[in-house]
Amino acid sequence: MGNMKDKTAIMGVGCTKFGELWEKDTEDLIVDAAFEAMDDAGVTPDDIEATWVGNLYDFTGLSGGVAAEPLKLFGKPTTRVENFCASGMDAFRNACFAVASGAYDVVLACGVEKLMDVGGSGLPVDMGHPVFRGASAPGMFALAATRSFHEHGWTREDLAHVAVKNHKNGALHPKAHFRRPITVETAVNAPMIAWPLGRFDACGMSDGAAALVITRPEIAKQSKHKHDYALTKANALTMNAFLPMYRASYDWLSFPATEAAARQAYEEAGIENPVEEIDLAEVHDCFTITELLNIQDLGFCERGEGAKFVREGHADVDGKIAVNPSGGLKCFGHPIGATGCRMLCEVTKQIQGRADGAQVKNARLGLGHNLGGPGSVCSVTILGLPE
Amino acid sequence: MGNMKDKTAIMGVGCTKFGELWEKDTEDLIVDAAFEAMDDAGVTPDDIEATWVGNLYDFTGLSGGVAAEPLKLFGKPTTRVENFCASGMDAFRNACFAVASGAYDVVLACGVEKLMDVGGSGLPVDMGHPVFRGASAPGMFALAATRSFHEHGWTREDLAHVAVKNHKNGALHPKAHFRRPITVETAVNAPMIAWPLGRFDACGMSDGAAALVITRPEIAKQSKHKHDYALTKANALTMNAFLPMYRASYDWLSFPATEAAARQAYEEAGIENPVEEIDLAEVHDCFTITELLNIQDLGFCERGEGAKFVREGHADVDGKIAVNPSGGLKCFGHPIGATGCRMLCEVTKQIQGRADGAQVKNARLGLGHNLGGPGSVCSVTILGLPE
Repeated sequence: MGNMKDKTAIMGVGCTKFGELWEKDTEDLIVDAAFEAMDDAGVTPDDIEATWVGNLYDFTGLSGGVAAEPLKLFGKPTTRVENFCASGMDAFRNACFAVASGAYDVVLACGVEKLMDVGGSGLPVDMGHPVFRGASAPGMFALAATRSFHEHGWTREDLAHVAVKNHKNGALHPKAHFRRPITVETAVNAPMIAWPLGRFDACGMSDGAAALVITRPEIAKQSKHKHDYALTKANALTMNAFLPMYRASYDWLSFPATEAAARQAYEEAGIENPVEEIDLAEVHDCFTITELLNIQDLGFCERGEGAKFVREGHADVDGKIAVNPSGGLKCFGHPIGATGCRMLCEVTKQIQGRADGAQVKNARLGLGHNLGGPGSVCSVTILGLPE
Repeated sequence: MGNMKDKTAIMGVGCTKFGELWEKDTEDLIVDAAFEAMDDAGVTPDDIEATWVGNLYDFTGLSGGVAAEPLKLFGKPTTRVENFCASGMDAFRNACFAVASGAYDVVLACGVEKLMDVGGSGLPVDMGHPVFRGASAPGMFALAATRSFHEHGWTREDLAHVAVKNHKNGALHPKAHFRRPITVETAVNAPMIAWPLGRFDACGMSDGAAALVITRPEIAKQSKHKHDYALTKANALTMNAFLPMYRASYDWLSFPATEAAARQAYEEAGIENPVEEIDLAEVHDCFTITELLNIQDLGFCERGEGAKFVREGHADVDGKIAVNPSGGLKCFGHPIGATGCRMLCEVTKQIQGRADGAQVKNARLGLGHNLGGPGSVCSVTILGLPE
């Protein structure tokens, strides 16, 4: 396996407001995100040679065309990439491979989902596997929470601190869906979804799209882009046991796919001490319990210490490592295909010192973490600045 | 745009029998095709670093896992690629980019579809776009046939000659679904589906899977593979106007996406006279009329000359350029995600002199052509032998 460090560069990023966007369809969202990204990069559709679109719910049946047509990218390849809830970051990954191979100079990676139009829980109604029938995302992640409660003595208040932190951040972000601070009391007293996960432990249902213009560093250097470009320091994707949650041997205390992807990414980027070296992380907080497990799986603290790490403020914007300074999935919702790309837009802007919401001071190195499957696939991407 | 010529190599190929495979599920088909490909390449799952799966109908909702789990590729990335009926060849294309980038040394590209389980016509029941409601694949391609009848004086007998040629070839292929020769009379007198397309003008409904092991030429050279490896001479994918068939300006006489992909591929491979230089082509004959248009769009003959080209035997196995020596979609059916990969397996074996069916004599250079969208996306891949 080869090292992809510094082989690709992000020239520009774009992201729609996330929310219940009834007045926008998939094509509108792609156009909004992609043109913002192209404008940010100082390029036009003429410069884009190929496109990748991350999307889970293929409700149009036309996912390639859904980007090629409205963006007027006629004659140019557009590929739909699907990888469960990590579809967005895998679209970015495949776009990076194409650029690094030399096949194209400038490409677009987008993610989009009109989740409101699906009307579901964020999981397909019937995923084919018998154990899935009747299962829901909150129900499955609740089992991880009860296990950590039992093993580590965590409580609903511990979960609430994650929600409070992310809502504090999201309230400052103009593109977030949910933009109000909450208290621990609000979170703890909220209606229950699947015990111990209440309304404020789950991310919302949202629509959205995000896009990135990708090139090679030598091209980014010479371009008339308005901002410093960002470099891909690592781009790891792993696929662990399919549905680890349904294996008898699964201990419910971590997501092995994240641990593996983090190991690969840190090795690729040459990172020895992630919590010291990385300034911020946009992690997959589909539920508050997921963020606590992510923090551990990514090596920001020891197993069992996740709740304490957040309670003590180490994950705050001015903490040891800012976790979800955007407000995360908690405040943006999780329009599936969009999420991974949105995270990378956020990380790019943070390390360039132009975050839309709360800016992490002196951020130089950031991490995006996209989990899917549920739990079987994980993508970890690390972005940094050129020297 | 960079040239990908000779940057990737096919180490081994595998393909299931195509047909009504009620006793096999998607995972069975992937396992059968992938293990045949790995065996052919002299590698094991341990050697595979990443996988791409082409699949259109995500009826399981678990397309990445559907390959990772049964192949025991735990911890390794598996990505689903969807690009309409060209999903299979686009999975191959993305796998090639990853290998050419240096990210991985040995990867797997698969395509699979359990079309019998979908029970449809080969098109999603509702593709979202209003004009699609009530449309069917035979109905749409029939319009291209009537236009060519009007413009070029073609007849149902001209279509029948395509079916006769492909059934002659398919009868010799042990993996084909339909394995009997037919006569022009049989084809012309068959029940009508959508005038002028009768039963023998349409490809059948089939299940199937195909897989390829891909690496870089320098690795292929040193491996213990059993056969000469094949080199990717060109790998072009274009996406033209979405649904060209519904544009008022569309003349119904060609697929512009194919013309564009062919131009790109010939330039990349350095081919000036395709019909002289290329020995065989597996082209997307979802309908007989499509093959006639493909022959023209790929530059094997002038526009209007496709029917004459086939009638005069130039597309026969011993003709100027063998078109669908396997029997094509006509005899294999079109399990959507599988088709593009199956074509490339066939082309690989042909140029290596070990075709399963009718062998094209002294074949050195072959072309695969995968059309989708319908008509909006086309992938043209050219494979050759090392010097």
